[in-house]
Amino acid sequence: MTLNELVRFLESKGIELTFNGDADTQIQQVAPLDKAEPGSLAFFNDKKYLSALETTRASAVILAPQFVSASKTATIAVKNPYYVYALSAQYLYPRIQTPRGIHPTALIDDTAKLGKNLRIGPYVVIGAEVEIGDDCDIQAGTSIAQGTKIGANCYIGKNVVIENDCIIGNECNIKSGATIGGEGFGWAREGKQWNRIPQIGRVILGDRVSIGNNSTVDRGAIEDTVLDDNCIIDNLVHVGHNCYLGESVAVAALSGFAGTTKVGANCTVAGQVGFAGHLTVCDNVHFMAKSGVTSDITKPGVYSGFPVTDAKDWQRNAARARNLDSMFKELKALKKELQALKDSQD
Amino acid sequence: MTLNELVRFLESKGIELTFNGDADTQIQQVAPLDKAEPGSLAFFNDKKYLSALETTRASAVILAPQFVSASKTATIAVKNPYYVYALSAQYLYPRIQTPRGIHPTALIDDTAKLGKNLRIGPYVVIGAEVEIGDDCDIQAGTSIAQGTKIGANCYIGKNVVIENDCIIGNECNIKSGATIGGEGFGWAREGKQWNRIPQIGRVILGDRVSIGNNSTVDRGAIEDTVLDDNCIIDNLVHVGHNCYLGESVAVAALSGFAGTTKVGANCTVAGQVGFAGHLTVCDNVHFMAKSGVTSDITKPGVYSGFPVTDAKDWQRNAARARNLDSMFKELKALKKELQALKDSQD
Amino acid sequence: MTLNELVRFLESKGIELTFNGDADTQIQQVAPLDKAEPGSLAFFNDKKYLSALETTRASAVILAPQFVSASKTATIAVKNPYYVYALSAQYLYPRIQTPRGIHPTALIDDTAKLGKNLRIGPYVVIGAEVEIGDDCDIQAGTSIAQGTKIGANCYIGKNVVIENDCIIGNECNIKSGATIGGEGFGWAREGKQWNRIPQIGRVILGDRVSIGNNSTVDRGAIEDTVLDDNCIIDNLVHVGHNCYLGESVAVAALSGFAGTTKVGANCTVAGQVGFAGHLTVCDNVHFMAKSGVTSDITKPGVYSGFPVTDAKDWQRNAARARNLDSMFKELKALKKELQALKDSQD
Repeated sequence: MTLNELVRFLESKGIELTFNGDADTQIQQVAPLDKAEPGSLAFFNDKKYLSALETTRASAVILAPQFVSASKTATIAVKNPYYVYALSAQYLYPRIQTPRGIHPTALIDDTAKLGKNLRIGPYVVIGAEVEIGDDCDIQAGTSIAQGTKIGANCYIGKNVVIENDCIIGNECNIKSGATIGGEGFGWAREGKQWNRIPQIGRVILGDRVSIGNNSTVDRGAIEDTVLDDNCIIDNLVHVGHNCYLGESVAVAALSGFAGTTKVGANCTVAGQVGFAGHLTVCDNVHFMAKSGVTSDITKPGVYSGFPVTDAKDWQRNAARARNLDSMFKELKALKKELQALKDSQD
Repeated sequence: MTLNELVRFLESKGIELTFNGDADTQIQQVAPLDKAEPGSLAFFNDKKYLSALETTRASAVILAPQFVSASKTATIAVKNPYYVYALSAQYLYPRIQTPRGIHPTALIDDTAKLGKNLRIGPYVVIGAEVEIGDDCDIQAGTSIAQGTKIGANCYIGKNVVIENDCIIGNECNIKSGATIGGEGFGWAREGKQWNRIPQIGRVILGDRVSIGNNSTVDRGAIEDTVLDDNCIIDNLVHVGHNCYLGESVAVAALSGFAGTTKVGANCTVAGQVGFAGHLTVCDNVHFMAKSGVTSDITKPGVYSGFPVTDAKDWQRNAARARNLDSMFKELKALKKELQALKDSQD
Repeated sequence: MTLNELVRFLESKGIELTFNGDADTQIQQVAPLDKAEPGSLAFFNDKKYLSALETTRASAVILAPQFVSASKTATIAVKNPYYVYALSAQYLYPRIQTPRGIHPTALIDDTAKLGKNLRIGPYVVIGAEVEIGDDCDIQAGTSIAQGTKIGANCYIGKNVVIENDCIIGNECNIKSGATIGGEGFGWAREGKQWNRIPQIGRVILGDRVSIGNNSTVDRGAIEDTVLDDNCIIDNLVHVGHNCYLGESVAVAALSGFAGTTKVGANCTVAGQVGFAGHLTVCDNVHFMAKSGVTSDITKPGVYSGFPVTDAKDWQRNAARARNLDSMFKELKALKKELQALKDSQD
């Protein structure tokens, strides 16, 4: 591909850019600045790597306008270089897709409504009344149970399970091994027995929602579990019944949400974070790794610890916690000293 | 369904109840008190929602006898409203099942012994000498390896793996993506190599055991891994080799049990809790979220923290931990003050 | 099997041993010392169980030379009894394998290159240009996507997903439900949208790597995610994009590695540990359960806590943390006392 082609593609996506260099230069791959060979496209997004920008062997670099002068290669100057890098890489590396059409071993119920231009892999099972939008790719071994509706342009990996009556938006990305719409953990105890409470809510995913490998999103107990548009969820994450994750929420691996917790738009959740049930978190909160959220959060900011506090407080306190033993000893010595002083005055 | 039908069903299940209202009222669905429309069945289980009970538009409410007078709708007064709600919902919302019979693509070894009235979905694989009790539902893409025995009335989801020689009781519920009977994490190091120790124990699940989506229960090293009757396990939980979970133990998502740990009856474990190996926990212990259990627990109660302590102590200490930095500063100031006092006296 | 046969097998594996007893004794099974019946092989590896060694009914015990005199049964004296036990158990309990050959329902692309003596189970899907070495066992429902290369003698469980272009060494063990080579969690935000960054690196597993049930190892963003020879990973572990785990690293269940973190050889990681991204950990570090690693580790040792510190310091401090409330009260009392003393002197 020539840089000219790439620039045209980016412009077709609405990117405002200033191109500088030889438009006929061939680009074959992306690479990090410091490892790029000629033929590579790189991006520069962090001043820390300024020397790598100055010495890179890449054939072109995507960067912010103010760094153009630091580069000796062709440049594509844009407002948000990382985003433009993402678009460029999507263009250079089209997704590996299931071959077009429906594999003869896919079992599709007669009552399912299928869109156009589908790719449905081997050993896929699609239940009654399922609806699938145009241009979806549903890969090998995936099951989609009765009544589930999937929008257009979704990419659903291998050995995924989507249980009945879920609603999946457009351009969603459900990665291999994920389970969507499983029964929530709802039980009523009587004597020694835990009695299953039928989970009659659904899972509703907005548009452009992504669910990571082997993650689980449980269906609602009575109302629905909802992940709003643009939510992205990493691997091995658990979303409990009736949760609501607002627009553009991002959740890293091994985090979990107990039931009926609501998280506002733009929240970002690092790895191994846990949320208790029935909480409400406002918009624009970042939770640091391993934090534990046990009460409502009403003020945007960065939180950490268990139970969570303001991250700066947590850091200060955590630093002290590493000296707790010496603090204890100082306290003991001080006590003694004070006693000695008092004794000396009697 | 009429309330009359529902009441008869509940009585057939041995529920003692007092019905108040028009038995011919139609019920179509369950709903929360505050969102219920006419035709809905609701339940009242928490005094916090008393005003919702007084104003609900539900056609009937399941509640404890002392609240009947607060309700303007038909009432079903029972001792354990949440349990009776569970039964009612099970009746109103029968489970979605695999069609009766064995799907032609299911591969069943000739030596397997199958019960009556089975539902076996597409692309299921059932190995040699497997036994499956009556009325089981085994869903698409699930593999059950040789020698495993499954009781009656089990519901086994999609893409489940049950490895060889496991024993599953009656009325068990293994949710989609779970892996039962995988090799435990047993290795003997020699030089740079970790050498696999064959795991020759089994997984034994009692009756009415439920395993969540994408959870893993490893087989025993020599002896068995056992989950006793009525254990319920949420999603993404790990149970290591040789563990024993007592009757009615409940475990929330993302918790893990290292090998050979024994947990007594009726213990409840919140999310992201971890248990070290070779521990013994007595009956009737609750572990709060994110706690880490590193030694035997011999006294029933509520525990929290890492390492766990009595939850009340933990709460007190955790509150102080949030002021550790100011505590440190106070200590430092005190030290100075004392020194000044001493100096002034020399 | 006779002890003679076992001894010959061990010698064929290069084990130096001293056998003592009747070589014709029959061995049918392995068992723990205290539960062994005649016909059992046991091992002794921990002085704590010396009395069990003295009274065992096992027909033979594997042990270190200095304990031979404590045993009344046949003995196999070796340097590393646990390792020799592992080998013996492997010999007594050969793995349960998929029947030899390729199941007629396995779908194998014409361009795939298959080694000799394969076992490929039902409903396996193998993509274009995949290469599989000799003697592999690939079990039911597993998908291996295009371009992936797998060495010889690998054991790949059921419903595993290996995405495209991965490289798996020899004698690897990928357990059921694991997902290898999924897209890493790489996103560029623009407005409300998270834009997918194509993950064009691979997953490369060395020889004798083991991946646990339902674990996920993500492919690299640009460069590769690498697990070096002899890494062993437990269940429900997440390895993020571009991570490098050195030789012989062992990781217990529910631990996670954020992107681009490098862990040195021989590190061992207990359960529920989390690693932040872009870290470097030196060789020979042990991380205790639930620890959180947020900065580089340059000194071998045992670490614990969040953020991690030297485990001994952590234990001391954690013990104090359990008395934080009384420490706070003492501090307050001390303050008062000092004030009183000062007041008395005015």
